[in-house]
Amino acid sequence: MLGDLLLGGGLCYSKSRFSLQKGERTVKTVEYERPVYYYETDRMDCVHHSNYIRWFEEARIHFMRVCGMSLEGLEAEGIVSPVLTAEAEYKSMARFGETVRVETGIESYTGTRIAFFYTVRDKETGIIRCTGKTSHCFLSEAGRPVVLRKANPEYDLAVRRALEDDPVGKEQET
Amino acid sequence: MLGDLLLGGGLCYSKSRFSLQKGERTVKTVEYERPVYYYETDRMDCVHHSNYIRWFEEARIHFMRVCGMSLEGLEAEGIVSPVLTAEAEYKSMARFGETVRVETGIESYTGTRIAFFYTVRDKETGIIRCTGKTSHCFLSEAGRPVVLRKANPEYDLAVRRALEDDPVGKEQET
Amino acid sequence: MLGDLLLGGGLCYSKSRFSLQKGERTVKTVEYERPVYYYETDRMDCVHHSNYIRWFEEARIHFMRVCGMSLEGLEAEGIVSPVLTAEAEYKSMARFGETVRVETGIESYTGTRIAFFYTVRDKETGIIRCTGKTSHCFLSEAGRPVVLRKANPEYDLAVRRALEDDPVGKEQET
Amino acid sequence: MLGDLLLGGGLCYSKSRFSLQKGERTVKTVEYERPVYYYETDRMDCVHHSNYIRWFEEARIHFMRVCGMSLEGLEAEGIVSPVLTAEAEYKSMARFGETVRVETGIESYTGTRIAFFYTVRDKETGIIRCTGKTSHCFLSEAGRPVVLRKANPEYDLAVRRALEDDPVGKEQET
Repeated sequence: MLGDLLLGGGLCYSKSRFSLQKGERTVKTVEYERPVYYYETDRMDCVHHSNYIRWFEEARIHFMRVCGMSLEGLEAEGIVSPVLTAEAEYKSMARFGETVRVETGIESYTGTRIAFFYTVRDKETGIIRCTGKTSHCFLSEAGRPVVLRKANPEYDLAVRRALEDDPVGKEQET
Repeated sequence: MLGDLLLGGGLCYSKSRFSLQKGERTVKTVEYERPVYYYETDRMDCVHHSNYIRWFEEARIHFMRVCGMSLEGLEAEGIVSPVLTAEAEYKSMARFGETVRVETGIESYTGTRIAFFYTVRDKETGIIRCTGKTSHCFLSEAGRPVVLRKANPEYDLAVRRALEDDPVGKEQET
Repeated sequence: MLGDLLLGGGLCYSKSRFSLQKGERTVKTVEYERPVYYYETDRMDCVHHSNYIRWFEEARIHFMRVCGMSLEGLEAEGIVSPVLTAEAEYKSMARFGETVRVETGIESYTGTRIAFFYTVRDKETGIIRCTGKTSHCFLSEAGRPVVLRKANPEYDLAVRRALEDDPVGKEQET
Repeated sequence: MLGDLLLGGGLCYSKSRFSLQKGERTVKTVEYERPVYYYETDRMDCVHHSNYIRWFEEARIHFMRVCGMSLEGLEAEGIVSPVLTAEAEYKSMARFGETVRVETGIESYTGTRIAFFYTVRDKETGIIRCTGKTSHCFLSEAGRPVVLRKANPEYDLAVRRALEDDPVGKEQET
């Protein structure tokens, strides 16, 4: 069990939900858990706000692994996926000693662009620390936009499964 | 000259502009310059997106110093100014070896909340790397919202001068 | 089980060994595991060397939790434990995608000072990435050196158990 | 003047000294200045110890630029210069609001390896915050050790000048 979890990117904990409402559809979300590190705090005795952007990345990469969206697969074909936008809304302060749980899901997918949403909670109390969103595109090494369905069908399929809550997607995580 | 600059927070360069249009009024902006550090790059050979959020903070603190908005003054009265929101739009990739110039101004001020906007450019070419915004509130040690005009009139005045492009504000920087 | 592990500082994995030879005695070591994060890499496509110093801290805090050396307990009594020295020897390059396993033990303890040693390995291959050492003292809020046996006997005892490989120490982890 | 300084890596300040005694010879040192950033502090209200390792890198790269040891030149020939060892001795705590001045010099040079030493001081009081050392080798893309005198004579010469306090070296900075 723990071994599997570690395959999922060294995470300590993973759970998928299918309850989140996005308009009419139900979105699959994956949870990622990690402790707050001492060096992530600042002199205000709480986590510096820039670190949440890094936690989003950790949670996103975990989400992708759990859902079979292989970053290595993209890179093997010379596809990079730069961040276009990042935003965070800070609700309360995470502190050293607590473990945060980040719930991640796909906000939108156009075939050439993808956006993720994040909710960071204190694991123990469930209190929301921060919510956020990031958007990304897919570029060839030449810097040209790439249509994933052609350039990397496996990745494209994995994204669609994550959006449509496909059973295969479920199996992939357990 | 260099001495003065250092008083302005160890900055290498500072210039104020009064040309920026925000609706009908003209907003004062201050420029802050700093090199890209090697450790700020990632394996994509460009600056990791989370670092721009930190550059916004450097530029904001510099802006505050240049405009006489004393962070130390706030803290001396037990007022903290946490970040409420942060957002960044990435336009092009900053790389090791270049120096970035961050133009900062006040987006809005309500007396209890303040928002800043940022434009990060490659110093040499002027190409925009990133634009962003952060918003902040002012809290007492008890965590209660604070009205700056009462709690710290000097700070409140400095903000209004920065917004109104007051000559005193100008003198303060040179 | 996973719950316990999380109490141990959100770690993904923990194992104690009693095999390490330090002169004549046997030293207890604790292993700490964590993935390499994307933002920890630099443009040389490997982990920036400064991050190992941060991993040492993560592993040290985990070691302390597992061994019942409560940092919170120290702080509750106004005792701080600043880093006096840090050193790292880089053997090979950790890369994004791998999980590192940090083996930590107490190098020395004088009652007023403590030193830890670290070995960072790639979890999969066991190849050593980095070895290092940090030393720390204990200070009162006034900045005066503190004798732990008097100031915090529980902490002092926990350290001695970790050094002497005491069965109680063992129980504390499982 | 300021322009020149910025060429020197966006530094705010630079001065060379020739007074430092290393055994019988006199070593050239270069000073690098930078403010302490808010996000570099931790909950102990001082700079997290890992950041000094990053400041060493900033100061080293500045030293190299001032002395004409071109990192870009190395990379253009596919030579990388990984860190072999890093060590720091923490003397006092740097805090937000202060500017630190890092004095850097070459500790040793064998033609295939180089070591630098660093002294970090509070600019205003001159109080030493930290001293440290890093050592580096030179590798080809294939990972083989490189003899600089053959692989990059300009770099090799610049190092020797920095060690021998050559007037040309002096001219290069002003």
